[in-house]
Amino acid sequence: MREQMLKSILSELNGSSADIEASAVISADGLTMAALLPQDVDEDRVGAMAAAMLSLGERTARELARGDLEQVMVKGEDGYILMSHAGKDAVLTVIARKDAKLGLIFLDAKRAAKAIADIL
Amino acid sequence: MREQMLKSILSELNGSSADIEASAVISADGLTMAALLPQDVDEDRVGAMAAAMLSLGERTARELARGDLEQVMVKGEDGYILMSHAGKDAVLTVIARKDAKLGLIFLDAKRAAKAIADIL
Repeated sequence: MREQMLKSILSELNGSSADIEASAVISADGLTMAALLPQDVDEDRVGAMAAAMLSLGERTARELARGDLEQVMVKGEDGYILMSHAGKDAVLTVIARKDAKLGLIFLDAKRAAKAIADIL
Repeated sequence: MREQMLKSILSELNGSSADIEASAVISADGLTMAALLPQDVDEDRVGAMAAAMLSLGERTARELARGDLEQVMVKGEDGYILMSHAGKDAVLTVIARKDAKLGLIFLDAKRAAKAIADIL
């Protein structure tokens, strides 16, 4: 039931922009709660990398006096990965193409993260 | 000599926006090449966290098919940390306030990273 609600948020998110390739909701310890990924993207891999980035990001934000972590963005030559806290227990991960308009992706991810936090 | 040139790039960068609090050029293994940091920010700490984030960011970008890493951004409640590759051997780290206009910071960091890569 909750998985269906999470999936419908992800589905709306992926549909909001052609530049969003995939998205997933992941627990703080890296386990998938819901995911809408292309077939060639491994769910466990997304979870593991997101959890590791968030954990190191939290430490970095704290050590450099930036307060509690809200988001981590990774930009590669071929696209973006954006990880956003969705409440205390979950992380929304969005994988976007290289031509993505970052402002839109940030806005849509923020809204989706809020909706996810409200469900969990 | 090169340290002075790097410092003058950082000085121009920090001066370009009141929202940039600090910046540093760090080697791929986390050692400081040049830094303009407030007194209460520890140089070694910035270097260590930036090197760790970049290394994990590289792996994340590769594992999730985003190509070679260009940037990692950490957003905390109290501000941003932006790490950008400056050529193959160095990383530019920028620490910005929470009200910073991200578009400007990204642009200024990109220009400074290019200037740094040209010197090294």
